[in-house]
Order: sequence, then structure tokens, then C-alpha cells
Amino acid sequence: MTHTRPNTPLLDRIAGPSDLRQMPDRQLAALADELRAEVISAVSETGGHLGSSLGVVELTVAIHAVFSTPMDKLIWDVGHQCYPHKILTGRRDRIRTLRQKDGLSGFTKRSESIYDPFGAAHSSTSISAALGFAVGRDMGQATGDAIAVIGDGSISAGMAYEALNNAGAEGRRLFVILNDNEMSIAPPVGAMSSYLSRMYASEPLARMASLAEGFEAALPTPLRESAKRARQLVTGLTGSGTLFEELGFQYVGPIDGHDMGQLLSVLRAARTRATGPVLIHVCTVKGKGYAPAEGAADKGHGVSKFDPATGAQAKSKPGAPSYTGVFGQALVDEAARDDRIVAVTAAMPDGTGLTKMAERFPARVFDVGIAEQHAVTFAAGMAASGLKPFCTIYSTFLQRAYDQVVHDVALQGLPVRFAIDRAGLVGADGATHAGAFDIGYLGNLPGMTLMAAADEAELVHMVATAAAHDAGPIAFRYPRGSGTGVALPERGKPLAIGKGRVIEEGTDVAILSFGAHLFECQVAADMVADDGITVTVADARFAKPLDTDLLMQLVGHHRALITVEQGAMGGFGSMVLHELARRGAFDKGLILRTLCLPDRFIDQADPADMYADAGLSATDIAHSIRAAVAGRAEVVPLRQVR
Amino acid sequence: MTHTRPNTPLLDRIAGPSDLRQMPDRQLAALADELRAEVISAVSETGGHLGSSLGVVELTVAIHAVFSTPMDKLIWDVGHQCYPHKILTGRRDRIRTLRQKDGLSGFTKRSESIYDPFGAAHSSTSISAALGFAVGRDMGQATGDAIAVIGDGSISAGMAYEALNNAGAEGRRLFVILNDNEMSIAPPVGAMSSYLSRMYASEPLARMASLAEGFEAALPTPLRESAKRARQLVTGLTGSGTLFEELGFQYVGPIDGHDMGQLLSVLRAARTRATGPVLIHVCTVKGKGYAPAEGAADKGHGVSKFDPATGAQAKSKPGAPSYTGVFGQALVDEAARDDRIVAVTAAMPDGTGLTKMAERFPARVFDVGIAEQHAVTFAAGMAASGLKPFCTIYSTFLQRAYDQVVHDVALQGLPVRFAIDRAGLVGADGATHAGAFDIGYLGNLPGMTLMAAADEAELVHMVATAAAHDAGPIAFRYPRGSGTGVALPERGKPLAIGKGRVIEEGTDVAILSFGAHLFECQVAADMVADDGITVTVADARFAKPLDTDLLMQLVGHHRALITVEQGAMGGFGSMVLHELARRGAFDKGLILRTLCLPDRFIDQADPADMYADAGLSATDIAHSIRAAVAGRAEVVPLRQVR
Repeated sequence: MTHTRPNTPLLDRIAGPSDLRQMPDRQLAALADELRAEVISAVSETGGHLGSSLGVVELTVAIHAVFSTPMDKLIWDVGHQCYPHKILTGRRDRIRTLRQKDGLSGFTKRSESIYDPFGAAHSSTSISAALGFAVGRDMGQATGDAIAVIGDGSISAGMAYEALNNAGAEGRRLFVILNDNEMSIAPPVGAMSSYLSRMYASEPLARMASLAEGFEAALPTPLRESAKRARQLVTGLTGSGTLFEELGFQYVGPIDGHDMGQLLSVLRAARTRATGPVLIHVCTVKGKGYAPAEGAADKGHGVSKFDPATGAQAKSKPGAPSYTGVFGQALVDEAARDDRIVAVTAAMPDGTGLTKMAERFPARVFDVGIAEQHAVTFAAGMAASGLKPFCTIYSTFLQRAYDQVVHDVALQGLPVRFAIDRAGLVGADGATHAGAFDIGYLGNLPGMTLMAAADEAELVHMVATAAAHDAGPIAFRYPRGSGTGVALPERGKPLAIGKGRVIEEGTDVAILSFGAHLFECQVAADMVADDGITVTVADARFAKPLDTDLLMQLVGHHRALITVEQGAMGGFGSMVLHELARRGAFDKGLILRTLCLPDRFIDQADPADMYADAGLSATDIAHSIRAAVAGRAEVVPLRQVR
Repeated sequence: MTHTRPNTPLLDRIAGPSDLRQMPDRQLAALADELRAEVISAVSETGGHLGSSLGVVELTVAIHAVFSTPMDKLIWDVGHQCYPHKILTGRRDRIRTLRQKDGLSGFTKRSESIYDPFGAAHSSTSISAALGFAVGRDMGQATGDAIAVIGDGSISAGMAYEALNNAGAEGRRLFVILNDNEMSIAPPVGAMSSYLSRMYASEPLARMASLAEGFEAALPTPLRESAKRARQLVTGLTGSGTLFEELGFQYVGPIDGHDMGQLLSVLRAARTRATGPVLIHVCTVKGKGYAPAEGAADKGHGVSKFDPATGAQAKSKPGAPSYTGVFGQALVDEAARDDRIVAVTAAMPDGTGLTKMAERFPARVFDVGIAEQHAVTFAAGMAASGLKPFCTIYSTFLQRAYDQVVHDVALQGLPVRFAIDRAGLVGADGATHAGAFDIGYLGNLPGMTLMAAADEAELVHMVATAAAHDAGPIAFRYPRGSGTGVALPERGKPLAIGKGRVIEEGTDVAILSFGAHLFECQVAADMVADDGITVTVADARFAKPLDTDLLMQLVGHHRALITVEQGAMGGFGSMVLHELARRGAFDKGLILRTLCLPDRFIDQADPADMYADAGLSATDIAHSIRAAVAGRAEVVPLRQVR
């Protein structure tokens, strides 16, 4: 029988979701198996978010089988679990370029596919976006149903709650699929998480199939019976509602997210019958179907390249310690000396390096969940009580708490210490995770002290500086990845506030670097030495307060000044420009260039490639030095403005 | 009996809360009556947040009577209901300076009193801060209990949910008093609000006194009985929990917030017995005890000076229309021509001028509640569906959604229109409400188009420009208060993107103004005309994209360039500086000054006084013009750097 091609993998027949929708149900579970194998194979070559993607293989197949994507809008929260989705939606041939330069994004991305109607990478945005599409549909736009798939970690964030609250009140037809694997990046925290756990604690997962009354009629009889029973267990015999029902959603679940039959039945019933917002509670296992991931503590959340047979991940060459690790150790050292030091993380104890402190001083590390807004004001409250909180949040995620930094910390002058990891370009996670804007959005705040670490030894001193600084808020930023390999001090020493340092002395051009691009500045200085240009390289250490003595000295003794930073326009260079303007330093002529990130988003690649793309390689800096000496305008490399 | 001084008002005997704690219970209700009269009298002279303060008079007395403030930390959410608190905590002699220059803040403020342990003005921060104090206490800091008082509007925000979620999991002793008056600024929206309403819908308020089991034993018998009954009504006969109990709080309530006996009993029982987090649900009436406020649609939320006998508020002199009103009408006009235009507000339909559109096109205005994060991403979802959303949020509150602007709007290039009201300094609401930072935090984002309206006619054109602009996100900012009185165009006309305009031509100095300080620039130009200095005054209209042709023309034909903006450092002036540096415009000398808000927070006063305080009066600008012509450095007025 040639038309079934029994020896051809099912996956080869799927050019897009419409092919999948023509498959008989009985083949979909087998298709999911193949899809899982393909994900494992691809991620073994690229690294990436393995566990989350494995957990939603069946769910991905079922959603595309039941809903009419791309007319129906499927929105993956965070988007890191989208690898099976990418494979099914015409991107299988590029799946082994995941997270690489010029390759597929590791998240959903509108510019990548019509099947990605709303991109993501930060958590908890999907319900808001889906509600936006639902309104568009109701107002006549050419769009169908809207489906948000959101994890139990993401749904505990305030933003998701705001969206549930609004969607429940709006009452529009809308599907929220809660992908409940009892894990975010780390095991989830918070009362909401306990609530979800209690909801299915009393019955083994495999026998669960609770469905809201309205949907049960559409189910085959055995499923209908078990659905009724499970529902009673979950909601109590009185039929009083779940939290989601209190918020205006019809609640369906929990169901087994690896049982294709259950998934198809429930999704079809929901699609047929829903008139308002529906929450479908699907229980999945992160890392499902791949023993090394299921067995790992983080369920294979983020992996490097690995051997598919064993799951053994490629080890990075032993090199300089990571900034994150150095921060974590330096904080433990300070905490050992001062018991008022506490630390706050928003669901990222590992990523921020706080695990070390949590082991040594468990009562002094607070993981508040995906809740940056609360994290910052909670830290402000602790500071007001006399404690010394280190609020440890990636640059890109601190954007989530900007108002709290302004209103609760800066306006009140409270000594919260912001440890800002992942400053600048971050590599494989791409533009969504770039720490591009913090220098500007923090530096503009009255009373803020703002530092950036040039290397990991500097970071140790900045931790000590922050610990000692009680006069107001203080922030220090440092990049992702390994340090420069410089020797670490035995003990951090508080730096003089607002004082920079000169690293190399020259006579022609001065470079004033803020942060971890100091090394590239030194390389650039070496490059131009061949042209007979000698360069002073200085490390500003502080963007605020600015070392105006150093600045005016550099301006006074060199033909040109170049500022360099790992951040967007409006940051360190802007502060230098404002200060020089205020002092009338341009009045009689001053060759000044501000090298910063260009005014566009930079796609994922190795950080070095990203900085080259941004016109911030050592070669680019050397080019700017030469041009400045020659007095040429438009010295910014063309790539900056393309 | 001299020691009771029956003719002396009770309020006169209260120098601080400790005096109040020595009063017998039976006098506290009478004290509350006097306090209410004092609030009405004071606010009739100053204007302010009358309704909220009247609603919490009994609650304020009861909390101070039961808890040991200031050792116990009482944190009022938003802080606009704090007038009775200020009167009781040593600020009665200054209460008639509320919201005025050099007077008391209209909100709680740490620098004002030891009884304000954590200031506020933006909503939903109190639980986070209180939890911070609770941790401080548990770690040995000299602080007692922490009590957050939060309204039903504020508790529906995501940030409050994050805090409840974390506090419930932490399990520390903590008091959250939910002040439930079924009102935020506008009637509240959202599913959470309906949930709270249902919680006490079945029983008249006066008979309610439900208390958690643990507290009931401490109550007098009649109260105990009614408590049990009411609790059963609220939680269902099965004793299944409320939403707050699901989140880990002990729930007590609802109780009558105007019944001093109930308040004292419940607060004392809670204080005696609580071991973990307790939520006390108190029902109050906004505007309570003052008929004109109780009878008003907004319950006297924000009033101007009024006649205490009648409640008749002072009318402002008929003058130029407000920017807000002009925006609201311009948006209705655009919406009438394009049915894809929709509008989003976060609980402020009146304040943002959307009421007009809500009347005409009710299905096209979305009030999402106090939920700025959701508001922006919801708007992004609507934009992705093909609609044209205007996201209408004050500058200071848009800080709450910064990450959503970056991650969901700018990164995806979605055409969300940001209508940014209350840009610049705002007057009586003071520093917490200043719209100081948006030029920088939006202007630094790739792909953002950013305008500011020089007057209300310009605002009409900018609404039209935004409506027509589908190429990406676009924002326009405009100040609080009245326009300049300029004639309004019959119909808004889209402006050329990135093009400014010359208002007056001169030869000596050029002023490039961004936004509503254009008028002050023109006045300054007139002032220096007497010195024989002629000034070109230009309106940039766009901070991004910048009109580089106009900029270089101004630079090329004048001895000096001065930029003027109603915003902080890092904004428009920074963009001009970066552009000039990039073009090498400083190489051969250029007198350039950037006039912006100084690097400190400005206390409340009339906006004109605040701008004078900031060194941005017309006189200050004229001073800068003269100094620039004279080639003097440090031309920035000294007040800028004090």
C-alpha cells in the first residue's frame, strides 16, 4: 500500500500543521514520539531548553491537531518550550541552528514565522497578548481563536494574574492552557504554587481526567466517568469553585498532558463548546521521555550540547571563573562578616549565583518567585528596617521593576544594593535578554550610585563597596560568562565612591571605559600603537557619581576622548556628554566619541560576534581611535547605522 | 472634675498615638468623629483626597489604639488616605499646608515623620514593604509588627498578588488590612473585584462580623455568634477557604470599618493571636460621614477647595482647555474616522480623558484595572491582531510597564500608540507623580518614535500622527493642566515623522525645545531681546527620530545651541548630544547647553514654582542664553546643582 508509506517517518510527512490535521488520531501519539526524538537529537547538537520542550511534545501536537493555526493564534509563554512547535511549523530544516548566529531564535519570534503570532522570552506575557488577539477577533480582525500556553511558574507572576483578572471580567472566548510541571527554572516557590500542588495531590496523575461539567458530555463514556470523579476530588464535593473559577474562568482539569487521547478529547470539547474564557489545567513532566533530563535536578531546563545516548553534556573548558560565580562567593564572604546582609532573587537562585549563599545562610536568601516588582519593594522594606538587601536580578528582568526602583527605592533614598547580572549582550538568548538599557534607566535617577565591573576582581570590590554603602541605593552591573582570568583579591575592599582609575597612560587619545569592555579597549590601544598613537586607557568604575576630576584631566591632556560601554545610547556616554556640556568643555573644541550599542536590537550569536555586529569589537574601537586622531567625523563604523 | 476636661475637644489632647492609647475605648468613637470633622475642615481649605481619608477615620484611630506605632510599622498603600493618620501623628498643626509648596505631602513620606515608615503614592506596594519589615523584625532589627492597609483597587494589581503569594509562603506574622470600599479612583473592574463583592453580597454590612476561628474565642459572646454565622456565609458551609486562605493567609472578616467596637475587638484579637500572615477584610464607605462626598460619583476621591457646609467645590477659572481634555476629544475624532482605533487605561478613564470615548464607543475602551503591565502587553496583542491601540498611561505609571514596552512592543516593532499624560512636573502630587524619566527610557529603545506636544494644537496633530503611524511603536507626551489657549485645528493632521519646526528666527542663539516648555523659551527669547540678543526658537516635535537637518542648521548658523525639555537628564538633550558627537560637531568648538530637570527630586508646589525650583523658568533660560553668548561655562543656574 504505497499511500501509507509505512516505513517513512510520520514526521517527514509534516510540512506544516495542516498536514498534521489530516492524520488520523491513532497516528498522533506515534508522531509525538518521533517529534520527541527529533527534539533530543537537535538539542544534543545545539544545546538549549531541552526539558521544557520535551514536556510539551504531546501538547504541541494536540493543539496543532485541534486548532487552526496560524489563523488561530497559539502563544507560548516565555517561548523556550517551542522547539517541537518550530519543528511542526516549517522550521524543521533549521532546527539545528537553534540559538546560533543567523539561526533560529531559542524563543518564539514574530519575524521568524507566521506561526509565532506573538514572540516572547520573558515570562507571563501570553495571557495578555492572547486577550489582545481575542479582542481583535471580536472586532472583526482576520484572526481566530487565541490560545495561551503558560507554565505554573509563569502564571504565578503578577502580570499573569492581572491578565487572568481582566480576561475573567471581559468574558471573551479565550483558551489558557496551564502547563503544570511543578517547575519553573528552579522548583517554584510561593503560595500559588502550593495551591496548584494541592489541586492534584490526592490522586495519581495517570488516573486524573477532571473536566468541567459542560465538556463532559462530549467525552467518551469511560473518560467522562473518571472526569467527574477527578473533578470532585479537585473542587470538593460541594462543587465550590477553584481559584480560576473565582476569577471568571471555566476550569477544566487537571488532565494528563502526555495522554494524547485525553488531550485531543479535552481540547476538542473546549474548542466546540467554549463561549467565554477557559483554563485547561494540563499536568506534564519536564524532560518527559528522556531519562537523563527527567532524572536531572533542573529536569534538563537549559543544557549545553550533549551525547544523546547518555545525556552527558559537553563541559566548557576550565577557564576563568564566571562573573556570576565570583559574585556569589563575594556575597557569601561579605554575608559572613555582616549578618544584616540578605539577598533576594526572583526565581533564579542558580542563575544569579545565590545558591552558595542559600546553602551557607538559608534564612538570609529570599526567592520570591517570578515577581520582580515585589522583589524590589520587598528589598526596599528590608532596607528600611535596617537590613542590607542585595537585590540580584538580571539587567533585562530589572526592567520589570523599574517603577519600584524609582518610587520605592530611589525616591526614598533607601540603601538597596542592586546586583545586575547579564549586563550587556548575552549570547544565545539573544535580543530579548540583552542587558542594554540599565545604565540609562538607573543612571538618570537622583541619588543612585552606579558602578560596572571591568573584571571579576573589580566585581569583588564592588560587592564590598555596595555592602559598605548605606547612603542610598547602589547598583553594580557585570556581564554574563567568564571573567578575564585576573587574580582575585583575598577580600573585597570598598572603592572610593565616584572615583575611576587610569589603567594605561598615553598622550594622544584617552579612552574612558565603563564596565567589562575594558579589555577590548586595551587591545585596541595595542592595535593603534603600531600607528604611533599612544592611548590612555581609564576605567570609570562609576557612571554615577561621575569622576569629573578624571574626566577633565583626560579631556585636558589628550586630543580626543572616547567613551566605551556595554549598553545602549543614553547611558554612560550620555552622562559624560551632559557633564562636559554643563562645564562648557565643548566651547573651544573637543573631539569626543561615545561608543555604545547601536540603535537596533542585536540577534543572538556568541557575545563577541554580537559586539562585533554592534560595532564594538576591539578593531572597531581602534578604528575610532585612528579616526578621532585624524579628526574625521562620522567615525562610528557604518555597521552602527545600517 | 478638671482631669477629664469635658469641654476640651478630645483631638486637642492627642499629641501623638501614645496619647490616644491612653484614652478609654468609649471615647475613641467620639475622637473619630472629631477627626472626621478636622479632615473635612482642612481639606476644604487645601483640596486633596477627601473621600479616601474619610473612609478610614475609624480604622486609623483603631490601628493606632491597638498597635504600638511607630515601633510597629503602619504602611498605608498609595498613602492618599493618610490625612487622619497625619493629624494623629503630630502633623495636625501643618495639616492645612497639605499638597502645597513647603507643606505636608499629600501622601505618606519617610522624610516627613517617623510614623511614615514607608512612603507611597503609586499603588500596591504596601504588602511587599510590610513583608520587608517583618523579615527585619525576625532578623533582629528594632522594629515591631508590620501592618499594611490596602484598598480593594490596589490589591487587585499584580504587584500586590506577588506580595500576597510570597507572604503566604513565608508564613511570617504580618497584618494586611484590606480596606474594601468597592472603589478605587473609578469603580473597580476585573474579576477579583467581583469576587470581593460576592464575599459580602448576601448579608447587610452592619450585621457582618465574621472572624477566623482562632480569633473568635477572644471576642465578647454576641460578636462571637454573629462572627461564626457570617463566616459561614462567606466561606461556604463546608468551611472551604477563601482565595486569601488558599494563598496562605488567615482570613478574618468582613467586618464593619466604621464600627469602632468591632475594629478594636478584631485588631486586638489579631494582634494577640496571630502567628502567621493575617488578612483582615474591613468594609468601609468612601467619603463616609460627609454627605456631599458620599453622594458624589467619585465619592469625593480628589477635590479642590470647597465650602464645608455644602460641599460645593471651587471652580477653576474658565481658561484654556486641559491637555487631557484635548487629547480625549482628539481621540474620539480619530476613532470616529477609523474603527480599528481602541484605547486602554489602567483604572484611570477620567484622569486620562478616555471617558469621552467610552461614552461614544463603549466597546472600544478597555479599563483593565490597576494593571499597567497587562495593559501594555494587552495593547501589544491588539496591535498584533491589526487594531490600533492607544495605550493611555501617565508618564509616572508607565514606569510600571517598562519591560512590557521593551519586550512586547519595541522588540517586536508593534504599532502601539502611547499617550503619555502628566509628562514633566505635575504640581500638588509632587515628586512621586513627576513624569521625569520617560524621554530617556523610551527614547533609548530601537524603533520607538517619540514626540512631545508644545501646545494643545500640537497635541491634536500628534494624536492624528499616532493614528496614522503603523510602522512601529509611537509615543507622545504632554503635561498636566491647561494648554496655552492656542486655537485648536478643526482636524488633526499627521506630522512629518522626524521633522521639527522653527517658531522664531534669530541670529545669535538657537533654542531647540522639546515639548510644552516652548512657551517659556519664547518668553526667554523676548527677555534677552532687550540685551540685543536675537534668538531662534525651534520646536523639535520629535526626540526620535531626531530632525538632524534642523539640528545641524541651528548649529551651523548660531553661536550657541540650548536644548530645553520637561524631563530628566538622559532624555532629549542626551539624544542631541549623542548625535552631535557622532557627527563630530564638537570637534572645532560648539557652545551647547542642555537644560533639563536637575538631578534631584522636586517637592510639590505649583508646576511653575516647581520648574523655577528646577532652574527651568523663563528667567533661567534667559540667563543661560546670556551666559552662552558670553561664552561662560557653568551656565547652569546654581539651583540645578545644589
